[in-house]
Amino acid sequence: MPQLRIALAQVNPTVGDLAGNADQTVEWTRKAVEAGAHVVVFPEMSLTGYPVEDLSLRKTFAEASRAKVDELAKRLDDAGCGDVLAYVGYLDLDEAGPRDAAAALYRGEVVARQFKHHLPNYGVFDEHRYFKPGTTLDVVRLHGIDIGMVICEDIWQDGGPIAALGKAGVDLVVAPNASPYERSKDDIRLPLIARRAAEAGAPLVYTNQVGGQDDLVFDGDSIVVAADGRLLARAPQFTEHLLVLDMDIEAGGHAADGELAGLHVRRRVLSTEPLPAYEPLAEPPISEPLSEEAEVWSALVVGLRDYVQKNGFRSVIFGFSGGIDSAVVAALAADALGGDAVHGVSMPSKYSSEHSRADAAELARRIGAHFRVEPVEDMVKVYVDQLKLTGLAEENIQARTRGMLLMALSNLDGHLVLATGNKTELAVGYSTIYGDAVGGFAPIKDVFKTHVWQLARWRNAEAEKRGETPPIPENSISKPPSAELRPDQLDSDSLPDYALLDDILDDYVEGDRGFADLLAAGFDPEVIDRVVRMVDKAEYKRRQYPPGTKITFKAFGRDRRLPITNAWREVH
Amino acid sequence: MPQLRIALAQVNPTVGDLAGNADQTVEWTRKAVEAGAHVVVFPEMSLTGYPVEDLSLRKTFAEASRAKVDELAKRLDDAGCGDVLAYVGYLDLDEAGPRDAAAALYRGEVVARQFKHHLPNYGVFDEHRYFKPGTTLDVVRLHGIDIGMVICEDIWQDGGPIAALGKAGVDLVVAPNASPYERSKDDIRLPLIARRAAEAGAPLVYTNQVGGQDDLVFDGDSIVVAADGRLLARAPQFTEHLLVLDMDIEAGGHAADGELAGLHVRRRVLSTEPLPAYEPLAEPPISEPLSEEAEVWSALVVGLRDYVQKNGFRSVIFGFSGGIDSAVVAALAADALGGDAVHGVSMPSKYSSEHSRADAAELARRIGAHFRVEPVEDMVKVYVDQLKLTGLAEENIQARTRGMLLMALSNLDGHLVLATGNKTELAVGYSTIYGDAVGGFAPIKDVFKTHVWQLARWRNAEAEKRGETPPIPENSISKPPSAELRPDQLDSDSLPDYALLDDILDDYVEGDRGFADLLAAGFDPEVIDRVVRMVDKAEYKRRQYPPGTKITFKAFGRDRRLPITNAWREVH
Repeated sequence: MPQLRIALAQVNPTVGDLAGNADQTVEWTRKAVEAGAHVVVFPEMSLTGYPVEDLSLRKTFAEASRAKVDELAKRLDDAGCGDVLAYVGYLDLDEAGPRDAAAALYRGEVVARQFKHHLPNYGVFDEHRYFKPGTTLDVVRLHGIDIGMVICEDIWQDGGPIAALGKAGVDLVVAPNASPYERSKDDIRLPLIARRAAEAGAPLVYTNQVGGQDDLVFDGDSIVVAADGRLLARAPQFTEHLLVLDMDIEAGGHAADGELAGLHVRRRVLSTEPLPAYEPLAEPPISEPLSEEAEVWSALVVGLRDYVQKNGFRSVIFGFSGGIDSAVVAALAADALGGDAVHGVSMPSKYSSEHSRADAAELARRIGAHFRVEPVEDMVKVYVDQLKLTGLAEENIQARTRGMLLMALSNLDGHLVLATGNKTELAVGYSTIYGDAVGGFAPIKDVFKTHVWQLARWRNAEAEKRGETPPIPENSISKPPSAELRPDQLDSDSLPDYALLDDILDDYVEGDRGFADLLAAGFDPEVIDRVVRMVDKAEYKRRQYPPGTKITFKAFGRDRRLPITNAWREVH
Repeated sequence: MPQLRIALAQVNPTVGDLAGNADQTVEWTRKAVEAGAHVVVFPEMSLTGYPVEDLSLRKTFAEASRAKVDELAKRLDDAGCGDVLAYVGYLDLDEAGPRDAAAALYRGEVVARQFKHHLPNYGVFDEHRYFKPGTTLDVVRLHGIDIGMVICEDIWQDGGPIAALGKAGVDLVVAPNASPYERSKDDIRLPLIARRAAEAGAPLVYTNQVGGQDDLVFDGDSIVVAADGRLLARAPQFTEHLLVLDMDIEAGGHAADGELAGLHVRRRVLSTEPLPAYEPLAEPPISEPLSEEAEVWSALVVGLRDYVQKNGFRSVIFGFSGGIDSAVVAALAADALGGDAVHGVSMPSKYSSEHSRADAAELARRIGAHFRVEPVEDMVKVYVDQLKLTGLAEENIQARTRGMLLMALSNLDGHLVLATGNKTELAVGYSTIYGDAVGGFAPIKDVFKTHVWQLARWRNAEAEKRGETPPIPENSISKPPSAELRPDQLDSDSLPDYALLDDILDDYVEGDRGFADLLAAGFDPEVIDRVVRMVDKAEYKRRQYPPGTKITFKAFGRDRRLPITNAWREVH
């Protein structure tokens, strides 16, 4: 059977950085050539980064992207990479509108150019807004092997391009992807790709983007499956990687052309002779998927790191309260950026406990962060005295004074402020806007409180396994959570027990279950009523929250869009 | 020719309030019956309000909406309104998914049920996310007249339902709409509807929603056009209205049924005999469209009023700086809610001029607002001394201290805080997040600075025409704008002249023109460079800004969605 060496370039582009992403493409293609590859496959829209959102509607950007592809074909050839068939993703524009496109570059030319057919428009995707669907399928014959391509969603939907390629006949399918991470997504992804390979009757090469982009994070996890669904190779998650493997490919010499299932198949021959037999590489390791906690932790670290770095910041600052949320954010930030880039501020008020300050200082010591103490009592006192604040107004002014203090330090020193709130707080509105919600990024915005504790324990246990100091002080994990905005305040004064609360939220928010379903699941009607009312009321606060790495299907933000003015209540 | 009396119920529903909107439907149908109407047409999704966003994906909500329509048919019959054919909009759900639906109710029954065919997915619309398209057209024969219906976008796109109805043959088309206001939209709307009436070969009855919903505002402006395109009736803009008119309708006795242009036409006969001849009403007045400034002013007033009231607030609070922005917001708020619901706070710092305080007090006196002075010097001093703030950090802490002060007063007294920033500031990032950007609603978010001045002059002139005191002190209009955050600061220190700046922004933001186009338009390259860089950099701030009434196609917010992490620069 004809042989072919294929490289999957699992890279981390930056949205909008056409020049940088083009350089990255040259660099990684060169690596692929050095590894002896005949084909290299980059992710979906690898030249523009994904998702470009309304940049797709900017003519100057689309034109620059189109020009960059042609230029890249020549550049690769000049760099001695002309003989490798390189699949790159980019934004195209023609008379019908913008296109989510992939091009095959070979010997200084664009030898194939295909537009995504299925445009997802659910969850975080708005592609009907951004692109027009493609109707052609480009099959290229290289060394006698017919290679077809499909882009991302084209493998997620039944029917369409894959079925058409199966009918037309191809020997190999490459699939550039930008498929955002979600907890346990690999459980769905691998069987799906195996099914599509069977439909196409050919092995499938799936290259996924890696890295963070605003609230999305891409996990990589690029894979190659055989036509019979067998997993042949898998790249590691959450890291740039060049996965290279040799394949023996059954080459059919297919010739069918023209219209198939509404798609137009176009064929182009680059070379017909199979490669002379060569000694294949050792089979590449099939990377083991990360454990569930390791996977989530990596997603949060990478999402935070890329948000900070891609936006041009070098350091972060936030309140070290001694509580579990800020401790987990600190450990994440230290893993993402190094302890020296982390600036913790303890901001005690008259209601702060002594252990809060001690736990905060201990946290800073363990992760090697900068640490300072800035009491807020004097600022708070001026507001309280001048405006005669009491009750909620007095509680909120403490949180807000801290937010302003952090922003002032950010203005002085250029650190990015992080908001340390978790998904449970955000869901029920247990936070102060312009207070603890202040920040440019909210790393654990999509992590329920009970999950925050689990992650803390997992991260500490990992450190112990490696013989390192666990980053999170035990006391921050074990003490009862408190906002410390009035004497002896505990979260449990205002909220149901977190285990129960998160259970209901998981059903109501993630599962979209209604009141009757929640009752049937055995929850107490009064507690459901209380929780659901809090969630329904908190939409406005959630709108004002900074972005944060998404790890679930229903993260607040891009993929849950409710009106602010909204009189619908699940509970009447 | 057979006669028919038609009522257009131009109502203002609240999103999600199924019970309240159903009550509203009964009340307005009763008014139509009292006026002797045979048909009454409500706007698109009048039972749920529009747009419902992700509520469309909530099964419990869709089921409640569906049930409400059946219940409403019976309720109307019980209320003695069974003999009027009532078209109401609602959210349906079937095995294919959620539907943007309209139902015809008659004698206690749903006699027709049609789903929107064309789903807009541009600008503020995301309907591919929310609905599945319909494929049927329901034609009902009432008193011998064949009435077809189309929903909103179905008249905005070429081909499709209207063309199919034209082929099938109908005598009258009703078109429930929820078409958001945009400056000068009527210039497009009327010729379009006239063209569609010609395509359908029948008069067209277009009922549009009125009122504010988050950042959208609907202007009503419901119209009826004859088959030859003649305007027969028009409702006033920005106010609830029942428009009633008698029509002589050519009834063709059409019978074509079945598939037409991929749509399935279904006919149902309610009554075949034309009505006995009756004395028609006097022709209804054709409301004159408002002048351009009056139209924008009304949009801003209604948008603000409905945001406040539909969210359950009764009063607003914001900083009265003495400048033009807060003065215009104050005049809008007084027009929307009455002066007694407006609370102005002058918050002088050591850099505030004496005239600022005097102009603020004069503004409050003119509009009858509550007014207090709360100096921020003491709060600012604590921050500046404790953190040794200078430069930008010192400027920002003043703005932020004011934001916190307003939020504290909001917490004490329950007023909604308004942000007074304009579109120019927002475009170039000339505002302080957590400072002057604080608030639940930003009334002039979509109004460029030069337009703010125009509106101020227009509103004062209107007052003078009516013999009233002009609300805005002349001094606030004429003085050079300043943020007063450092000694002798003027906006012109940091920004190009506003007339020039707004011209460039209009081209770059509204017109989506690129650098080369701006050069060709004659702008100085250095100024373009400076402005475009400011706009490109300010995306993050714009994300954090509260919602505000949209009056242009490219308002910041719903209809301009750029990544935060974005290395693309129009200028390189």
